[in-house]
Amino acid sequence: MNAPADRPPLSQELAATLATRFGSRFSVASAVRLHHGKDESSHPPMPPDAVVFAESTAEVAEIVSLCHRHQTPVIAFGTGTSLEGHLLAVQGGICIDLSALNQVIAVRQNDLDATVQCGVTRKALNAALNGTGLFFPIDPGADASLGGMAATRASGTNAVRYGTMRENVLGMVVVLPDGRILKTGGRARKSAAGYDLTRLMVGSEGTLGIITELTVRLYPVPEAISSAVCAFPTLATAVQTVIQTIQLGVPVARIELLDTLAITAINRHSKTSLREAPTLFFEFHGSPTGVKEQAETVQEIATEHGGQDFEWATRPEDRSRLWQARHDAYYAGLGLKPGCRALTTDVCVPISLLADCIAETYLDLEASKLVAPLVGHVGDGNFHLVLLVDPDNDEELTRAKGFASRLAQRAIRMDGTCTGEHGVGIGKQAYMALEHGDVAIDLMRALKHAIDPGNIMNPGKILPMP
Amino acid sequence: MNAPADRPPLSQELAATLATRFGSRFSVASAVRLHHGKDESSHPPMPPDAVVFAESTAEVAEIVSLCHRHQTPVIAFGTGTSLEGHLLAVQGGICIDLSALNQVIAVRQNDLDATVQCGVTRKALNAALNGTGLFFPIDPGADASLGGMAATRASGTNAVRYGTMRENVLGMVVVLPDGRILKTGGRARKSAAGYDLTRLMVGSEGTLGIITELTVRLYPVPEAISSAVCAFPTLATAVQTVIQTIQLGVPVARIELLDTLAITAINRHSKTSLREAPTLFFEFHGSPTGVKEQAETVQEIATEHGGQDFEWATRPEDRSRLWQARHDAYYAGLGLKPGCRALTTDVCVPISLLADCIAETYLDLEASKLVAPLVGHVGDGNFHLVLLVDPDNDEELTRAKGFASRLAQRAIRMDGTCTGEHGVGIGKQAYMALEHGDVAIDLMRALKHAIDPGNIMNPGKILPMP
Repeated sequence: MNAPADRPPLSQELAATLATRFGSRFSVASAVRLHHGKDESSHPPMPPDAVVFAESTAEVAEIVSLCHRHQTPVIAFGTGTSLEGHLLAVQGGICIDLSALNQVIAVRQNDLDATVQCGVTRKALNAALNGTGLFFPIDPGADASLGGMAATRASGTNAVRYGTMRENVLGMVVVLPDGRILKTGGRARKSAAGYDLTRLMVGSEGTLGIITELTVRLYPVPEAISSAVCAFPTLATAVQTVIQTIQLGVPVARIELLDTLAITAINRHSKTSLREAPTLFFEFHGSPTGVKEQAETVQEIATEHGGQDFEWATRPEDRSRLWQARHDAYYAGLGLKPGCRALTTDVCVPISLLADCIAETYLDLEASKLVAPLVGHVGDGNFHLVLLVDPDNDEELTRAKGFASRLAQRAIRMDGTCTGEHGVGIGKQAYMALEHGDVAIDLMRALKHAIDPGNIMNPGKILPMP
Repeated sequence: MNAPADRPPLSQELAATLATRFGSRFSVASAVRLHHGKDESSHPPMPPDAVVFAESTAEVAEIVSLCHRHQTPVIAFGTGTSLEGHLLAVQGGICIDLSALNQVIAVRQNDLDATVQCGVTRKALNAALNGTGLFFPIDPGADASLGGMAATRASGTNAVRYGTMRENVLGMVVVLPDGRILKTGGRARKSAAGYDLTRLMVGSEGTLGIITELTVRLYPVPEAISSAVCAFPTLATAVQTVIQTIQLGVPVARIELLDTLAITAINRHSKTSLREAPTLFFEFHGSPTGVKEQAETVQEIATEHGGQDFEWATRPEDRSRLWQARHDAYYAGLGLKPGCRALTTDVCVPISLLADCIAETYLDLEASKLVAPLVGHVGDGNFHLVLLVDPDNDEELTRAKGFASRLAQRAIRMDGTCTGEHGVGIGKQAYMALEHGDVAIDLMRALKHAIDPGNIMNPGKILPMP
C-alpha cells in the first residue's frame, strides 16, 4: 500500500488541516484506505492516502478547496461498485466518501421527478418512492449510488425502454475542482438554454467535478408487467427476434440474451432444467391488454425464428421465477470454474451487427481457450462476457486480457463502443483514441484542462496517457 | 446594411481567396447577404459580409480554416428558420450556406438510424424514409435542416414521447473553429466512453463548431394513430388532465393546449365552430387496441375534469380535420390583428407549476394590454404566447418586450427555463445568468474559450456580454 514512486506524498499540512476539521471523519487507517481503494473490477487495489467522510455539499466543497490549494488529487467514493477501476487512487490523494449524503430531498409526484443527494442508492430511492405510484427504472445490477451511476453514465437491463442516466438526469449540483458549487439544468423537461453542462458531467467519472445532488426523472409504476422466456436454435435467430421486435415498435421494457453456456451454468447452479440453448428473457410494461398484446406479438416473432418453449407470466411470483435464472447468471457463471476471478467485458454495437460481433467473438473465445458465459442487454446491442480466470495463472490472465482487447477493438470497428455502460476508468483508456479519434481526444483534453487545469479531479482516468 | 462601427471590415485578402476558390459560390451581393442575415424572429436583419455556398464537409473545413487564419467570424446557415436571431451577423463575417449538403448518406432499417448531411430537412428525411416503415419524429413546425435542429436543440409537438434533438442524435461530424474535423459519438445505442461531445455540440448554436453530418435515431411508423380534441371549462382543468394522463403512464405522442383566444382566432380564420374554451389536442401512437385504450383512458380523465365535446378519430382524413385547427393556430393568431408582427415566447416549467405560470402570465398580459394567443406543448410544460405587435408602434413593442422579459423571469423563478426549444441566440442572452447562475456561466465561457479561443464561431450568441 505504498504510493508509487512518481507521486508526491500527502502534504502534512493538508492532512493536519483535514484531521482538525473533520476529527474522526478523517482517516488514514490502512483498512479504511484499502476499502476505499478497490472496486468490483479485477484491477488490484490502489488505496488513497486518506479518506474523509463528508456529510454535505458544503463539506465536499471545503475539502475540494483544500485539495485544490495543495494540488492534491481528489476521488469521489459512492458504494465502490464500479467495474473499471474508476476509484483507484492511481496518483494517491484524498478520497471523499459520500455515503452519508443519503437524503431524498424531494419527491414531486405531479412532476414525476425527485431530487436526491448523491449517496442515495437506487434501491433506497425506490424504497422512498413506495406508495407514490412512481419508480426509478435504471438498474445496473449493483445497488449503486445515484451520484456514481450518473458519473459513470450507468444503465442496465431496462435502458431499452427508459434510457440511461444520460436521459434521466434533469439537473445536478456539482463541486468544481476549485471548490465552487455549480448548479446545472433545472426541472423543466426540456431546455434549449445554452451548453448542456448536465450531460457534460454525466459520464465524466469524477474527473471534472463531484456530483453531490441530482434531480432525476421518475416513471409511473406500470399497471401491468409480464415476463417471457424463450429458447432459440441459434444465437443469430435470437438476435433476429430482437431486431424484429424493436423494428415493430413493441415497447419492450427489457430484452436480455443468455448464451448456452450461461444457461448451462444456471441449470447447474440453480438446479433448473432450462433448455440449454441461446435464450431471450423479456419484460413488458403497460396496461393489462397492452402487455398481453406485446407478449403475443413477440411470441409470434419468436416462433417465426424457431423459438421454443415460449413461456410467459404476469403474476409477480411467476415472473420472479422466470427472471430468477437471469438474476443468477453472474454467480452461476462464476460457479463454472471454482476459485476463479471474473474479468467482464462491456461492448455495445449497432444491433444489425450484434450477431456478427458475437459470432466472431465466439471464434476468438474458442481459439483463446477461455471460458466465458455471455449475457446481454441486446435491445441496445450491449453484451457482456464474464471471462473466468484463475487468479494464480498469469498466462491465462494475459490470454484473457488479449481476448478482451480484441473484443473492444472489434466492437469499435463495427461502429460501436468499447464500453456500453461500465465506463472507462483505467480499464478502457487504451481504446479511447481508437474509438473517438485524435481530434475528439484532443477536445476532451481541452475540456478537462479548461475545467481542471491542475488535474486534481480523479487524475489518471478516462483520458489515455499523452 | 453597414457593419457596426466596432467590428473590422472583411479582410480583402480573405475575400479574394474565397472568391478565387469558390467562384460563383462566393457572394457579396446585397440580396444574398440580406437573405442570409435574417431569420423568422422579429429581430431586425444583420447581414454577413459575404456568403459562401459549401458543398461538403471538406469545403466547410477549408472555409473555417481560412476564417480562423484571418480571425473572421463564421456563421452557419441552414434554412433560416431560427427564432432568436441565431444567424444574425452581429459581428459581421462569413456566412456558410449549408443547404447543398443535402444528401441522405445512409438509412439503416435494422438499426433504426440514418446518417444525413446537415442540410437535409426533416421533411426531406421523412420523404427518403417513405416505404421503410420508419420515420423521424422531431417536428419543430418549420421544415428546418437537421443540422440547425441539432444546433438549437429543437423539439416540438411530439417531444413528450420521442424526446428532443438531445435524445435523438447518436453522433456527428463537426468542423471545429480551427478547421479540424471532429467525429463524435458512434452508432451504438448507448456508450459510457468518455465525455459526451455529442451533447456538448447539440444546442451549441454554431458557437463551438459547425455540424456537417448527423446520425439520428428513427422510429417505427406506428401501426395505428388516433387523435382527440377536448374543450375544458378552465385552463387549470385542462392542465390537470395533462398531469394525470402523464402520471398514469399513458404513452401519449402529443398533447397540445390552445387557449380560448387561440380557438377564437381559429374559428374566425378557418370558419370552424369549435367551442371557444381552453382545448387539448391529443395524438396516440401504438397498436389498434393500444391507441383505443389510450383514447378511452384520456377521455375518462378529461371527463372527470369537466372536459366536453371529446371527439376522437383514427382515420387519416378525420385526424387531419381534427388537427387542422392546431396547425392553423399561428396564422389564425396573426389574423387577430392584421398587419401585426409576432413576438413569440418559449418558456418551459415543471408541469405542476404550469397552471400557476399561465395564470400569472394572463394577469400580466391583461395589465400589459397585449393580444397574444397561447399554444403549448403541455406534456413537457412548454408553452408559447404569440404576442401580436404593430411594427410601427414602438411603445407597444416596448410593452411586449417588457412582458416577455417578465415571463422569462417568472419561468426561471418556477425552476423552469426561458427557452424550452427555440434556443438562446441573441433573444435570451439577458436571462442566461439568472437561469444558470454565475458559476455555470463562467463554466460555459471556459468551454467556449477552450474550444474557440479566437471567438470566431457565431460570436455574440448564447453567452451574455461579460
